[in-house]
Parts: sequence; structure tokens; C-alpha cells
Amino acid sequence: MEIARPYLLFLGDVPDALAAKTAVGIVDWRKDWCIGQIRLPGCAADTGLSDMSISEGASAGAKTLVIGAVNAGGRLPDHWIASIVEALDSGLDIASGLHVRLGDISEIREAADRNNAQLHDVRHNSMTFATGKGTKRSGKRILAVGTDCSVGKKYTALAMDRAMSERGYKSSFCATGQTGIFISGRGISLDAVVADFISGAAEWLSPETEEDHWQIVEGQGSLFHPSFAGVTLGLLHGSQPDGFIVCHEPTRTKMRGVETPLPTIEQVIETTIQLGRLTNPAIQCIGIAVNTAALEDDEALAFLAKVGEKHGLPATDPVRYGMEAIVDKVSAEFGAP
Amino acid sequence: MEIARPYLLFLGDVPDALAAKTAVGIVDWRKDWCIGQIRLPGCAADTGLSDMSISEGASAGAKTLVIGAVNAGGRLPDHWIASIVEALDSGLDIASGLHVRLGDISEIREAADRNNAQLHDVRHNSMTFATGKGTKRSGKRILAVGTDCSVGKKYTALAMDRAMSERGYKSSFCATGQTGIFISGRGISLDAVVADFISGAAEWLSPETEEDHWQIVEGQGSLFHPSFAGVTLGLLHGSQPDGFIVCHEPTRTKMRGVETPLPTIEQVIETTIQLGRLTNPAIQCIGIAVNTAALEDDEALAFLAKVGEKHGLPATDPVRYGMEAIVDKVSAEFGAP
Repeated sequence: MEIARPYLLFLGDVPDALAAKTAVGIVDWRKDWCIGQIRLPGCAADTGLSDMSISEGASAGAKTLVIGAVNAGGRLPDHWIASIVEALDSGLDIASGLHVRLGDISEIREAADRNNAQLHDVRHNSMTFATGKGTKRSGKRILAVGTDCSVGKKYTALAMDRAMSERGYKSSFCATGQTGIFISGRGISLDAVVADFISGAAEWLSPETEEDHWQIVEGQGSLFHPSFAGVTLGLLHGSQPDGFIVCHEPTRTKMRGVETPLPTIEQVIETTIQLGRLTNPAIQCIGIAVNTAALEDDEALAFLAKVGEKHGLPATDPVRYGMEAIVDKVSAEFGAP
Repeated sequence: MEIARPYLLFLGDVPDALAAKTAVGIVDWRKDWCIGQIRLPGCAADTGLSDMSISEGASAGAKTLVIGAVNAGGRLPDHWIASIVEALDSGLDIASGLHVRLGDISEIREAADRNNAQLHDVRHNSMTFATGKGTKRSGKRILAVGTDCSVGKKYTALAMDRAMSERGYKSSFCATGQTGIFISGRGISLDAVVADFISGAAEWLSPETEEDHWQIVEGQGSLFHPSFAGVTLGLLHGSQPDGFIVCHEPTRTKMRGVETPLPTIEQVIETTIQLGRLTNPAIQCIGIAVNTAALEDDEALAFLAKVGEKHGLPATDPVRYGMEAIVDKVSAEFGAP
């Protein structure tokens, strides 16, 4: 799958910034691939790109309209369809990370057909997988886990991959969700795999490699989220991480989208080690990544110092303070590159 | 979905009895719906039904050939196709619990078309689900869990449902796998649901009901099986059981299909309570169901007595000694019907 660039990002009319995290993530990591954003009236998200109409985006050279926002459950709202059809009629391809397949909507399929355009559903895959085996593979793996959904697991994995590479480690990023696939150009949307093959798909995604190669695996969900914990556990077993990074958002009061209270960082560390030992008895926590965006600088630094000391682990905000402290931990535990 | 009866059971040439557990389960619970079995040379499984050719089965009045055996990964071996086509050409429908859809195989699709026959893929469903919410629902629920796959979770749930009904409780069986669907006529093959919706599908399967109605939910996999633990955890969270029964096979030395060692019953109880509390803080173990088929009667009774005493719980073999002891526990903990 090769998605034509540059992208024009469609944000719809989502009610908060988190719902547009796909678009925001693409801009954060591949801004040079993006030409502008489309926002419908009432949209509460903003990537910082120039607002454009579809015709303006097409005139500016956009090749693909990327649906960069998502509703709960991954559905496509009916009132977004007109924009998608207009983009197809303006000569663009469409790429979507929604659960629904673009081609299953007749207006979209017909518009794609008459314009000979591509419809990319990155959340779907046509591959078949074996069931997970749980056998130890060569190579080293790091998994991002979280106290909740949407707490920065993808950012953490991408930042860790970049920091490991800059330090001279052989490193690669393994995408498990739609935004990661847009950013990396490959991967599996793990939450769309048939349930029987979750851990098998995670094994395929992070295959046997050289013993000194690090695969940095994007996390999904949380072991403590009642909607998605099954995906999280299958990914943990399949990716058999040597090290994991706990991602956390300190102002969250309950799990995203449900009424369940948040677990503590300590609970996540203990439960991840307890369950992860099934496929990697040597699993350990190598750091804590906190999204401190809601805190002032001094509050953020104080919070990170407190959390780091409490758990005896490096604690950082990947966006604000980089990943050096956690790469140092990797070097101390597993050796220099 | 209404599958025409009587059934003719197809066992293929599977190498052991466990691989034909679908057929065996149908015969155990719905023998009066079954007319005979088809076995290819080399088949090591046996339901005890009369061996027939397809033409003999059709002459005897069979309406549906049920693929009652499964290979690892749920694939359909190429050399089974001729039998399926012959059954279609003899006027039978086909029902399958394999991962592969019957209609995706061109010879089968063409034979079904030319005979105007039904192809039932009970492992698939065309439903869409919401993501799980984790909110407490009215009604009572019991889930069968296991130290491994294929340790009697479906039998235990079916036997518990029957014993509860006989004791005067309002009770219903909730099928989560292909055999259970063949036996009950409804349900979801949970391992075929898209991973994001595992717990949501489990919530749909065991919906809000009268406070004194017991839903007995068939289990899937094991929290300690590296292939399937994600499905198990999503089912645990979605079914939010008030009570669970641990199923165990005492002669098993490692988890089915992989090299992972078996957990202890104690580990399963502790981990199920620990993780199940997320959606039902009052979750408790109500009994232990042991498949003692490999033990002599005195060994079986001694084993059950030892296990029951160790854990302070009723321990029984559902097939051999019934479920009365565990229904007694329900009565003691939750009240008489």
C-alpha cells in the first residue's frame, strides 16, 4: 500500500482535539507531507495547518484526502460523505483509518469508480495470520503501554525509535494503528484483526530479527480499559517485549469513553510484568512517559521527578523533554549500541 | 440463522479426538438431531454415530452436512472439498465452524449455487457491535474459564445451565463458539469478532435481563494461553460474571498447540478475580470443573476431593458427577431460586 502525497487532512466536525489525533499525529511527524486541513462547522480540533476548501487543496497539489478524525466506534458520519465525494470528484484519492470500509458506502464507491481513484482503508488488511505461538524470537523489543487509551503511546514509540537511532542503535518503529501506518507507511491496524489472531498478528509485526536490532512497538488500549484490554493483552503476548514504557496522562480522571476509574502507574507496571512474563520472563519496565501538556513547566518537572523517584525509573515527557533518559536506561540494562 | 436438521457430521481425517470436539459436542447434547458421521481414511476421531457415505446419509434424510472437525487456525484442507461438493450435489446444505468462509472456495460456491443450497458459516457473523462499556447490567452471570483451551468450558457451561434450570433457576446458555451455536441455535463466535469489539460483543451476548435470571456464558481460550488470552480477557470484561467456574484437565502438561507450561488452578482463580474486578468488583469463583476422563473412578474422586479442599470450593467433573455441588454453591452464595 502506497498512499500518494501530499496529504490534505480532513478533520470533520469532531467535538474535541483527541478525536483528531490521527491528523495531529501525521502533522507532528510528517508535516512536510501535509498541505492543509479541512474543517466542517463546529470542529473543535486544529492541526495548525492552513484551513482550506477541498478545491483549494486540490489546486495546491494535494493527492490524497486523509480522514484524520475518528468517531467512537470508528463509524463514518453521514454528513462527512459529501466532502469525500467532492474530494474524489476533484481528483484526490481517499485514505481512512475508520472501521467502516470506504468502498462499502455506495456514493463513495461510485465516485471513486467514475474518477478512477484509490480508496485506502488502513485500518483493514487483507492478510491472514497464524495464531500466536508465544515462542521467544531473536532481537530486542520495546512496547509502549498505557494507563488509558490516548495517553501518548504512539508518540512515545515514535520518539523512542528516533532517539534510539540517533544514539546509534539499530531501531525500527512497528505501527499497530492507523496513524502509525500513515506515518510509517507500513504496519497492521491490530484492533481490526480477527480476535483469534491478535497475538499472531503482533508476532508477524515484530518478527525474528538480528539480536542487536530493537523493534519499538506502538501500543494499543490499556490492560485496564474495559473496551480494549483484550487487544492490549494479545499485543503484549505477541510482541513479547524485553522492555516496556508506561504512558500516562496525569489530568485524566476516568478511562476514555467509559466510567471506569484510571489505574495507577504502579498497577500498570505490576500487571504488565505479571501477564507479559507468559511470553518473555525477562520483561521489565524501562521508563515512564507522561503527557504533561496540561501542566506548567515547573509542575511538569516536579511531577516527573516525583513519579521517577517513586518507581525508581526514568520519567519524561517525550514531546517536551525527549527520550534521552529512557535510552540511558536501555544502555544501562542492555548495553551500549 | 436456522440450520436444517437432521445433521450429518463430517469429521474429515483429523489426527486426534480433540480436533473433532465440535462433532462430539453436538452428539453429546443433541444426539437426536444427528443421523450419522462421515470419516475419511486416517481419521482418529469418532463420535459413536454410524459411519455413512454421503449418499447413505442423504438417503437416510440428512438435511445438513456439519463440518464437525477443525484444523489448527481453522483452515479447510483442500482434500475435504470433494466431500463437501458431493454433499451439495446430494441435496444437503453445509454448516461450518471453520474460519474460512465456505463461499470463498469457488468449487463450493458453484456447487451451492447450482443446487440452491445454504452455506452456514457459524464462526462468522454479519452483525456490528458497539465497543464495550464496562457498565454493570442487571441479571446474574456465570462464566466458564480454563487453565487451557479445550478443557471442557463449553460442557461445563451447558451442564451448569441444565442443572440450574432443573433446580428451578431461570437460566440460559450463551454460546461463544461454533459448537455452542450448533447446539443452542444462537450465539456469537467470539474469536471471529474484530478485536476492537470483543468485550462489546460479549456485552451484547449477555445483555441486561431480570435480576433473578442467570446467563451461563461459554468460555473461550485461557488468560494463560499465548494465542488466545486477548479473547479470554475481552470475554471476561464484557460478560462481567458474578461467578466463574475454573475448568481443568489434570493430565495436560503444556498449553494446547504451544510450548507454554500450564498455569495452576490457583493462578487462574487469582488472575481471573484480579482482572475481572474491572467490570464486576464482586466477581468470585464458585467452583472447579475437572475433566477426569483420563482417570479411574477412585483417582478421579480423590483428585476432586483434594482440589476442592485445597481451594475451599466445590470440585466436580460435569460429565461424570454432575453440577449439583456447584449449583449448591450458587444457592449458598446468591440464594435459592
